[in-house]
Amino acid sequence: MSHRLAPDLHVTRWLNTDTAPDLNSLKGRVVMILAFQMLCRGCAVQAVPQARRVRELFSETDLIVLGLHTVFEHHEAQGSEAALSAFIHENRIGFPVGIDTPGTGPAALPATMNDYRMQGTPTLVLIDREGVIQKHRFGHTEDLQLGAEIMSLILESPRPG
Amino acid sequence: MSHRLAPDLHVTRWLNTDTAPDLNSLKGRVVMILAFQMLCRGCAVQAVPQARRVRELFSETDLIVLGLHTVFEHHEAQGSEAALSAFIHENRIGFPVGIDTPGTGPAALPATMNDYRMQGTPTLVLIDREGVIQKHRFGHTEDLQLGAEIMSLILESPRPG
Amino acid sequence: MSHRLAPDLHVTRWLNTDTAPDLNSLKGRVVMILAFQMLCRGCAVQAVPQARRVRELFSETDLIVLGLHTVFEHHEAQGSEAALSAFIHENRIGFPVGIDTPGTGPAALPATMNDYRMQGTPTLVLIDREGVIQKHRFGHTEDLQLGAEIMSLILESPRPG
Amino acid sequence: MSHRLAPDLHVTRWLNTDTAPDLNSLKGRVVMILAFQMLCRGCAVQAVPQARRVRELFSETDLIVLGLHTVFEHHEAQGSEAALSAFIHENRIGFPVGIDTPGTGPAALPATMNDYRMQGTPTLVLIDREGVIQKHRFGHTEDLQLGAEIMSLILESPRPG
Repeated sequence: MSHRLAPDLHVTRWLNTDTAPDLNSLKGRVVMILAFQMLCRGCAVQAVPQARRVRELFSETDLIVLGLHTVFEHHEAQGSEAALSAFIHENRIGFPVGIDTPGTGPAALPATMNDYRMQGTPTLVLIDREGVIQKHRFGHTEDLQLGAEIMSLILESPRPG
Repeated sequence: MSHRLAPDLHVTRWLNTDTAPDLNSLKGRVVMILAFQMLCRGCAVQAVPQARRVRELFSETDLIVLGLHTVFEHHEAQGSEAALSAFIHENRIGFPVGIDTPGTGPAALPATMNDYRMQGTPTLVLIDREGVIQKHRFGHTEDLQLGAEIMSLILESPRPG
Repeated sequence: MSHRLAPDLHVTRWLNTDTAPDLNSLKGRVVMILAFQMLCRGCAVQAVPQARRVRELFSETDLIVLGLHTVFEHHEAQGSEAALSAFIHENRIGFPVGIDTPGTGPAALPATMNDYRMQGTPTLVLIDREGVIQKHRFGHTEDLQLGAEIMSLILESPRPG
Repeated sequence: MSHRLAPDLHVTRWLNTDTAPDLNSLKGRVVMILAFQMLCRGCAVQAVPQARRVRELFSETDLIVLGLHTVFEHHEAQGSEAALSAFIHENRIGFPVGIDTPGTGPAALPATMNDYRMQGTPTLVLIDREGVIQKHRFGHTEDLQLGAEIMSLILESPRPG
């Protein structure tokens, strides 16, 4: 994998937060982005609960968890902010969730999903303290591995001086 | 529990079927109704997969499984037919699902949910071959027990003659 | 499957019971036999807990659960009564467990395992009220199916007398 | 917790290895010790499979996994080498397992269990590259946390020069 700087997030609206997260101002901390769709079964059953566990385990001074709602199918059903708000509430999600900017054209992917070259949902992205994408994975990651990967980024990345 | 005849289903639209199921014409068979909401986590994770297992195990000549989408919260998010269709597709539900008729007034329950005196979702209703409610349960039922209860109704109820 | 009368159990010693169970005197009730080995992983993780759930769900006037310890490998490790007693205690088994009579010769199967033509462990045997083997299955059975099968035997078999 | 040098292991015999592991010569690597009993249900169902996952995930140049069979109850059943060998085989354990030296006296704990002040099984001990006990925990540890803890020791401990 060629490591590259994490592209900006193109989000129409952030839920669960007062201030819109911005990858640039998060430099110095590790960032985990979970791209999901509320009707994606693997997202709801595995990935979202895992992201909640991650947020509980690590300190916010080390790691920030962000959700990204990348709707690329069933737009009518899961495309509204009201639907996402209800999903966040029912699944007791405590971290910020951004609505990825819808693409244009019939089969267009949302903007951030496109920029990150995501293949589907769930996708997990781990960004180091310098803003570089270190992991980018479609599908499920085992807890043991994810715990090790996150700790590795927390400890290995140089803290900006 | 006082056993009573199962009230009619008040459904605005049935999905996953060409002909609207009707409890009266289903007499002679056991009917299992799963009342659920697509954003109810216990419904999506446990009750809906269980209903799929039930439908696979028993013959349609003995048992009919029906879903009932009883939206009593988050109406904006889960109240549309498009949302329910997407949920049905993503969760590979093969049995008919009816949309319970919305109640009137701000906190009104949907019509069938109200008539059946359901307390929430998921609710499981087992109706015997004569159309009488034999089980009515809010929350989770273990598979072992449910298998036994359904078989008991299949074998015990008199087949109309 | 050709249904046949359940052969007698050849047991050197019964644990967890004061009186040795005898299939002949259990006629009138459904009997579930779980043949297992304490070091068989599928037995310890799935089949034994399932047998405990079965025993809790059904009435003893309808169903008797019996364990049968059919040691055909690792004799040194799992062949002693002390080892089995400890396993029963640690796994909180409440039903009677018989020690299948060891076979003679180097690769001989225990006597009951041989008479029943069992292929390995776990094996589940369901015997109806008249003493006829109705189910005989090697490997895992899903709870939903097992609940239905047991209830079917409870209700379908004629009660003697 | 006061961190202290990991006491020597008092083992009567090592299985699954040609050379007896020795904590002193393992310095420079992180060591995870799982103290278990084969008839302890939480050990067999959770802790042993977790130790297998840990061994698969991390490189042996960073982490060594050791099992320690600390029999303090049901000696007759689980005290023999044959019993432990069968358990290792059935559970496909690939890492070395040492038999903790039995204590003397009626209620005596095995020697290593006693020296480490373990409270029961399973107990997990994480030793850093310098041979210092960094984690010592009775009961279950979640995978996410364990992955993070191990990686932290792998990266934080100074490699001997």
